Amino acid sequence: MNRLFSISRISKGSLRSIKSQQISRFSVFTMSMDSGFRVERDTMGELQVPADKYWGCQTQRSLQNFKIANKTDKMPIAVIHAMGTLKKAAAIVNTEFGLEPKKSEAIQQACQEVIDGKLDSSFPLVVWQTGSGTQTNMNCNEVISNRAIEILGGVMGSKKPVHPNDDVNKSQSSNDTFPTAMHISATLQIKNNLIPALEKLADSFEVKVKAFSDIIKIGRTHLQDATPLTLGQEFSGYHHMVKMSIERIKSVIPRLSQLALGGTAVGTGLNTYKTFDVKVADQISKLTNHEFVTAPNKFEALASNDSLVEASGMLNAVATSLFKIASDIRLLGSGPRCGLGELSLPENEPGSSIMPGKVNPTQCEAMTMVCAQCIGNHTAVTIGGMNGHFELNVFKPLIIYNVLHSIELLSDACNSFRVNCVDGIEPNLPRINTLLNESLMLVTALNPYIGYDNAAKCAKNAHKKGITLKQSAIDMGLLTSEQFDQYVKPENMVGPSEYKK
Amino acid sequence: MNRLFSISRISKGSLRSIKSQQISRFSVFTMSMDSGFRVERDTMGELQVPADKYWGCQTQRSLQNFKIANKTDKMPIAVIHAMGTLKKAAAIVNTEFGLEPKKSEAIQQACQEVIDGKLDSSFPLVVWQTGSGTQTNMNCNEVISNRAIEILGGVMGSKKPVHPNDDVNKSQSSNDTFPTAMHISATLQIKNNLIPALEKLADSFEVKVKAFSDIIKIGRTHLQDATPLTLGQEFSGYHHMVKMSIERIKSVIPRLSQLALGGTAVGTGLNTYKTFDVKVADQISKLTNHEFVTAPNKFEALASNDSLVEASGMLNAVATSLFKIASDIRLLGSGPRCGLGELSLPENEPGSSIMPGKVNPTQCEAMTMVCAQCIGNHTAVTIGGMNGHFELNVFKPLIIYNVLHSIELLSDACNSFRVNCVDGIEPNLPRINTLLNESLMLVTALNPYIGYDNAAKCAKNAHKKGITLKQSAIDMGLLTSEQFDQYVKPENMVGPSEYKK
Amino acid sequence: MNRLFSISRISKGSLRSIKSQQISRFSVFTMSMDSGFRVERDTMGELQVPADKYWGCQTQRSLQNFKIANKTDKMPIAVIHAMGTLKKAAAIVNTEFGLEPKKSEAIQQACQEVIDGKLDSSFPLVVWQTGSGTQTNMNCNEVISNRAIEILGGVMGSKKPVHPNDDVNKSQSSNDTFPTAMHISATLQIKNNLIPALEKLADSFEVKVKAFSDIIKIGRTHLQDATPLTLGQEFSGYHHMVKMSIERIKSVIPRLSQLALGGTAVGTGLNTYKTFDVKVADQISKLTNHEFVTAPNKFEALASNDSLVEASGMLNAVATSLFKIASDIRLLGSGPRCGLGELSLPENEPGSSIMPGKVNPTQCEAMTMVCAQCIGNHTAVTIGGMNGHFELNVFKPLIIYNVLHSIELLSDACNSFRVNCVDGIEPNLPRINTLLNESLMLVTALNPYIGYDNAAKCAKNAHKKGITLKQSAIDMGLLTSEQFDQYVKPENMVGPSEYKK
Amino acid sequence: MNRLFSISRISKGSLRSIKSQQISRFSVFTMSMDSGFRVERDTMGELQVPADKYWGCQTQRSLQNFKIANKTDKMPIAVIHAMGTLKKAAAIVNTEFGLEPKKSEAIQQACQEVIDGKLDSSFPLVVWQTGSGTQTNMNCNEVISNRAIEILGGVMGSKKPVHPNDDVNKSQSSNDTFPTAMHISATLQIKNNLIPALEKLADSFEVKVKAFSDIIKIGRTHLQDATPLTLGQEFSGYHHMVKMSIERIKSVIPRLSQLALGGTAVGTGLNTYKTFDVKVADQISKLTNHEFVTAPNKFEALASNDSLVEASGMLNAVATSLFKIASDIRLLGSGPRCGLGELSLPENEPGSSIMPGKVNPTQCEAMTMVCAQCIGNHTAVTIGGMNGHFELNVFKPLIIYNVLHSIELLSDACNSFRVNCVDGIEPNLPRINTLLNESLMLVTALNPYIGYDNAAKCAKNAHKKGITLKQSAIDMGLLTSEQFDQYVKPENMVGPSEYKK
Repeated sequence: MNRLFSISRISKGSLRSIKSQQISRFSVFTMSMDSGFRVERDTMGELQVPADKYWGCQTQRSLQNFKIANKTDKMPIAVIHAMGTLKKAAAIVNTEFGLEPKKSEAIQQACQEVIDGKLDSSFPLVVWQTGSGTQTNMNCNEVISNRAIEILGGVMGSKKPVHPNDDVNKSQSSNDTFPTAMHISATLQIKNNLIPALEKLADSFEVKVKAFSDIIKIGRTHLQDATPLTLGQEFSGYHHMVKMSIERIKSVIPRLSQLALGGTAVGTGLNTYKTFDVKVADQISKLTNHEFVTAPNKFEALASNDSLVEASGMLNAVATSLFKIASDIRLLGSGPRCGLGELSLPENEPGSSIMPGKVNPTQCEAMTMVCAQCIGNHTAVTIGGMNGHFELNVFKPLIIYNVLHSIELLSDACNSFRVNCVDGIEPNLPRINTLLNESLMLVTALNPYIGYDNAAKCAKNAHKKGITLKQSAIDMGLLTSEQFDQYVKPENMVGPSEYKK
Repeated sequence: MNRLFSISRISKGSLRSIKSQQISRFSVFTMSMDSGFRVERDTMGELQVPADKYWGCQTQRSLQNFKIANKTDKMPIAVIHAMGTLKKAAAIVNTEFGLEPKKSEAIQQACQEVIDGKLDSSFPLVVWQTGSGTQTNMNCNEVISNRAIEILGGVMGSKKPVHPNDDVNKSQSSNDTFPTAMHISATLQIKNNLIPALEKLADSFEVKVKAFSDIIKIGRTHLQDATPLTLGQEFSGYHHMVKMSIERIKSVIPRLSQLALGGTAVGTGLNTYKTFDVKVADQISKLTNHEFVTAPNKFEALASNDSLVEASGMLNAVATSLFKIASDIRLLGSGPRCGLGELSLPENEPGSSIMPGKVNPTQCEAMTMVCAQCIGNHTAVTIGGMNGHFELNVFKPLIIYNVLHSIELLSDACNSFRVNCVDGIEPNLPRINTLLNESLMLVTALNPYIGYDNAAKCAKNAHKKGITLKQSAIDMGLLTSEQFDQYVKPENMVGPSEYKK
Repeated sequence: MNRLFSISRISKGSLRSIKSQQISRFSVFTMSMDSGFRVERDTMGELQVPADKYWGCQTQRSLQNFKIANKTDKMPIAVIHAMGTLKKAAAIVNTEFGLEPKKSEAIQQACQEVIDGKLDSSFPLVVWQTGSGTQTNMNCNEVISNRAIEILGGVMGSKKPVHPNDDVNKSQSSNDTFPTAMHISATLQIKNNLIPALEKLADSFEVKVKAFSDIIKIGRTHLQDATPLTLGQEFSGYHHMVKMSIERIKSVIPRLSQLALGGTAVGTGLNTYKTFDVKVADQISKLTNHEFVTAPNKFEALASNDSLVEASGMLNAVATSLFKIASDIRLLGSGPRCGLGELSLPENEPGSSIMPGKVNPTQCEAMTMVCAQCIGNHTAVTIGGMNGHFELNVFKPLIIYNVLHSIELLSDACNSFRVNCVDGIEPNLPRINTLLNESLMLVTALNPYIGYDNAAKCAKNAHKKGITLKQSAIDMGLLTSEQFDQYVKPENMVGPSEYKK
Repeated sequence: MNRLFSISRISKGSLRSIKSQQISRFSVFTMSMDSGFRVERDTMGELQVPADKYWGCQTQRSLQNFKIANKTDKMPIAVIHAMGTLKKAAAIVNTEFGLEPKKSEAIQQACQEVIDGKLDSSFPLVVWQTGSGTQTNMNCNEVISNRAIEILGGVMGSKKPVHPNDDVNKSQSSNDTFPTAMHISATLQIKNNLIPALEKLADSFEVKVKAFSDIIKIGRTHLQDATPLTLGQEFSGYHHMVKMSIERIKSVIPRLSQLALGGTAVGTGLNTYKTFDVKVADQISKLTNHEFVTAPNKFEALASNDSLVEASGMLNAVATSLFKIASDIRLLGSGPRCGLGELSLPENEPGSSIMPGKVNPTQCEAMTMVCAQCIGNHTAVTIGGMNGHFELNVFKPLIIYNVLHSIELLSDACNSFRVNCVDGIEPNLPRINTLLNESLMLVTALNPYIGYDNAAKCAKNAHKKGITLKQSAIDMGLLTSEQFDQYVKPENMVGPSEYKK
């Protein structure tokens, strides 16, 4: 569909000029209508480019030179969209520094189409290319310039009137645009996807905290029976963990909001003009509705990707936290007969055709796998972050690929886990009560009445004979049934006491 | 194209029966010609499935319940193909255990189409599903049964005459098929892609070892100048590293070649017949031309994925090794003027338009990023491997996703690195000679002639004044020019000596 | 020595009562003067404890049951000291809740001795014990109670008048004391050791930034020659990286400053009194001169160790950053003749006896190894953090062991690297100038004068013939020597330009 | 004690000559009897060394320059002992290449004392030193030469008659000795400690497999109830996992048994004689009773540590496997009332004074923490392995420190886990039976008798009403009690069936 659309658009705008070009002896752009290719040239010679694609020679070379996992590992589209944003901002600011308004407007329009995802199919490159992201930067420059040329009625590939380097990449370098796109995309994905997903998950847990506030259950430490707490308290732990994950993630934003743009090739800002960096950060802020600032030290901003390593560390902490929550819920829902069975998880798929009541905790499984992946991604990011050299870290595509993957995985998994699991969790009250009452550790409450030694004997007797504490106490003549019920009240064991002298 | 193909095929084969089905009161299959969906039912109710797809209800539910990175993170197709293989093998063996030959043949044909990749578009599920891969197993069962039904002229979705569970999944469980597909796919990808890629890379290095065998150069330890060696010797280290990587990878194959199939749900083999496991492993061996065996202990084979963790550890070692090689080559090619500059790497892309001779070592960068990714993938695999519970590890999709990703990345990156970099490496002889002759450590050779103390003084003098050793020796009156040339012969410093009493 | 001291102290204070105890029929404490052991009893029977040690039965059992790396992997002493702090704080607050002032004072005095390191040899347990740190908590309770007993003239091991559980551990549980000690120790080690070490390192880099501000050198991206910058600018990147590391580390402190104490066994605060948690956090703040607060949710504070996983992620980011800096400096100092050679690193050890001028960058090597260790430690912390169950994470000793190890390693390595390397770095000016002038990319500056095409030809000619740009320009008749010197001024290439319309 | 011993030995052997030296004008060795130091000199000047230590100047400088975690992170003693071994072997072989027999014998005797651990206190250096281990190599050379001098009646520090470099280090370099010591120590620790520990653990599991062979229990997949198996089958999985761990570990030995010795500084073997490498490997084999061979390519053996990265990957796989086993046992022993409770774990420590029967699975916790540490160590090793440069990897101390740490941890933890946990595991038969009988999945066995639909209804009814399957079947009039007992026999569900046509 996209291809048809492209061809028809070419027909309308530029086919006539294409044809006239074809007969030109000095043509830099040749379209073979039969083969569906046009021929482009650069300093290394001629190259065929698909006629219906906006990209140019350098994109094509990258496609040919980097056939590495090329069916799956595309440069994340969020990076491309962020590139659109920063190049639009640069086009706006560059009008102050000599870029013709007409060109600027066409570039801006093309950039907006990139931002809007209308040109997604024009970005075919893989992650595993040059470590500066140069080829993706050139892919953007080529697509934007060709599209701007098209808008202005020119010939694609002619580099006129809009040149990919001189105009679209004006005052820029791969070395500052790519890290800028990394920060923009990571920031926006965190802000627009991950934090909302975490907030909704926290809200869902909060609902459960309230709903479960009166359900007293056995606590477990070391996986062993311990003193009681309410199910609401248990879920308040999960709620608070998610809230702190949000706090953690937010704490990274200030450093992620610093942009390298204006540093150009090595951080000095050669080929830019004073104030360009500040102005372009302002424009990006306007376009994204997020307050970005220019990086206070451009050498750090190019040579290191420490803020993304930091962000990855936070995603790692979030993954760690969610793994524990999902593991707990899986265990609490284990059963139905031979597990803990305190929670009923929503049944989303048919369980086994044989075993009714068997609900596999598939959302917990997806979540824990996602968390494991994010932790692995973090290792990759760390290795990329540590191995930069001199003025440029050249593990940039690796780093942003993994950071964005983790953000997407955690965002999606939080939403899936919330909707398909957490929201539908129900307590299995009979089971919860049975376990609570069978537990031996309620004996603690008897210490003041029958003394520690008798309490211990009572509990040991119950354990040995496999009877309840109450039965044991009665059997041993320590208490009457009424006394036991009066003294042993789990509801008095779920918080600190009032001190009485 | 696939869609049109599917629809036309439906038209030819089964449209009449579909229509007749539609008016049937007991229809389990409904196709809405307008919407392009058919309605399927299972124990949880009705569900719409795209009319042109072979998958059924459980696949569809998974699509709806697991919207996690669903644009990119599909279950690796190699797993699907391996599923086709094992289900074909099972269909063959099952004829001995009651499966009608006619059904078996249709299943085998459908399986072969899966193996051949003809039905790839019928497998839309993501990695982040249930941790046993059940939904992918059901996806396979549904697609194969529907295709077999189609072959046999039945109605898709009717489960007749070929039932996804009873026939396609006969004597199987997700819990033993999925780990079997993991081992098959990992083994074959290693054998067919990774080992050949490593072998070709080793061959390329071997060519260089020979070509560079007479080029004496400065050695470097701690990145500091050291005693000389030949460039061939240096490359023999790379060659040997790759050879040992192959040896390492091969050492994992015996354990990867053990198959879980026959263990069914928990490893006991319930619902299989004796000898099924051995026979099915034999069939798989025939189909794949690789000697697989049935796992000696099925409980281990379901509950752990240790052999894949082990394989991942080997991929990690290979990545570690390749990272070092690519880093060295990048450094040796650094320059052209202000780096080490001993090697000229192939120029694959136009360098900067300003700086001729600047060749960015982009293949080295892609390779080192790939290696970092594999190391991260290994962390994910390890975490998945350690967190299994009882009779089943439920991080299986995560594990195989990462293992296959690493195999593909390393295979592709080795090929890309070899073709686009290693094969074209040329020594920069003038630079190599200049550095060798400027080096001060050749002074070692003078010890027997002028004594250690004088040699040290000579070297210190050269270092202080920034002159050559030879000049220093002459200036200090220690040697004549002729004597220096006679005594200082780097070619005598690149191997052990013959002992003379 | 410690042993003698202990014995003599026992002689003075308590030997008489020990002897009188020995003849008691109901003695719970027996000292065999011959063997150097006393016999202690608990509910599992009798056990020999070294007579000169303060610890009791539970410590002794742990010693016997956990012989795992017991020569090296002791529980970090900073945890023990933090335990002393929190138990002192609890003793102070507990006087409000029924603890006798006399007992409290003795406990406080014993705690102070723990804090001051006077009792370090009384804490022999390894990291690899119970995952809640219970045995270390009991080690503390036993040592503090025995020492308090000694202070009060009682008999060690008699549990009178100071009981290890009832008095020293009053209102506490292992489950809240140990995570509290984790947060206290990590916070104080970061604040007192790591941040000062990073600040001093930043200061040292700042000195270099100023000293090197006028030295123009070649820039390098992809390890290839690029446009110039000043050495001061390059070091400003390092300086800024360290400053941001400090900012990162500080951002974790608010969450690390939340204390679990008051949650007791499962987070409910059973067996504590209302306000205990707030008051004990206040006391800890006073004792440590750092503002700690009680954790807002105790369930999270026991069940997760997310804040330490987060802190570990920050240490990981710091390690990543320092690795890059140390790697750069190592490379810039490579040579002396056959490397980059732009920096001279201090010579701390004799280089090879053969090669004068060879300075191995040993401090860089130690730093990069330390960073690799911290990154590995972070993986261990992450795995520990993710695998908690229900009301308690039981990977606590692992987690704090690794976090404190990383803090110590980074602190010590920063100090060592600063004093023994950074402070003594000197630029090798002749080399820096030679490289700068040999570089071809200065041709950029000629574009306005001879045009891009001629500039490119000039550079290509220089590259091909191995001559300088200047020579090439003169040879080609493009410029005179004077013109070249006038136009090509690297000092104009190290910043953005003033825009002129 | 060691100090007193050293001093007394000095008194006997060499004090007279020390005194005579003191008055010598050209003394290179000065002992201040007051301060306990002697003064040594090297090319960088004078330095004080403790009088009672065998080490010399380079060791002392390292102590001063690398104050990094110096209380805990010593170079592993197994490396030192391996250094003793290889230097003894070299001394033996060097007699063929010019080393005086008398010197050789003294060196051999000193080396043997190093091997036997008699000189352990003479090796004070930390891991975080130069990345080649040069300082530890010199520490060994200094100690061995001084001890050999002492044996021969010479003056410590005089370097006569045994010179640390010329004699002890003859035909060697740090760059080949240290990796040789890495391989020797890792191989021997694996062979002598880890494999025996794993074998004993496997044996213990085998005992349980037999003892538990008739106990039928519920299986669990996804933590949910599944079809039954025997407890013996479940433990056979653990047994087999450990057996495969042994197989894995053994598969690394051939590559670990390759020794770098003979490569000297850069791998060329400069300053050695032909056949030295083979002969010294033979001698090492004799001394260690393990068949070591000389590395076929010395460039690989110095420049990479891939075989240790590989070994670390295997340790990682072993850790992964043991983590799963310990987690399972912990969960199976959870309770006593509110968990799964199928196993009773040995009670090694008093549980809580309140809760009798509470056994914290502390050995499982120690084991899982140990495994997490090994996985973290593996990350560190990997990072070290990947970052080598040119002729030498300089992360060697980091790598061997972590590999040996993991070996020790796993060895000790296996022993501790076996003795204190596995051997004492008892099945809780009533609980196992109760769960088995309560389970609903036994309904599978009724399919042939009442049909799938009725079986499903029966199970659903039981699940809904919370009754047993049997009760449900009787209530629904499907079967009599006798029929149920006849048809539902779990013992028929724990293996494949005999096929009957």
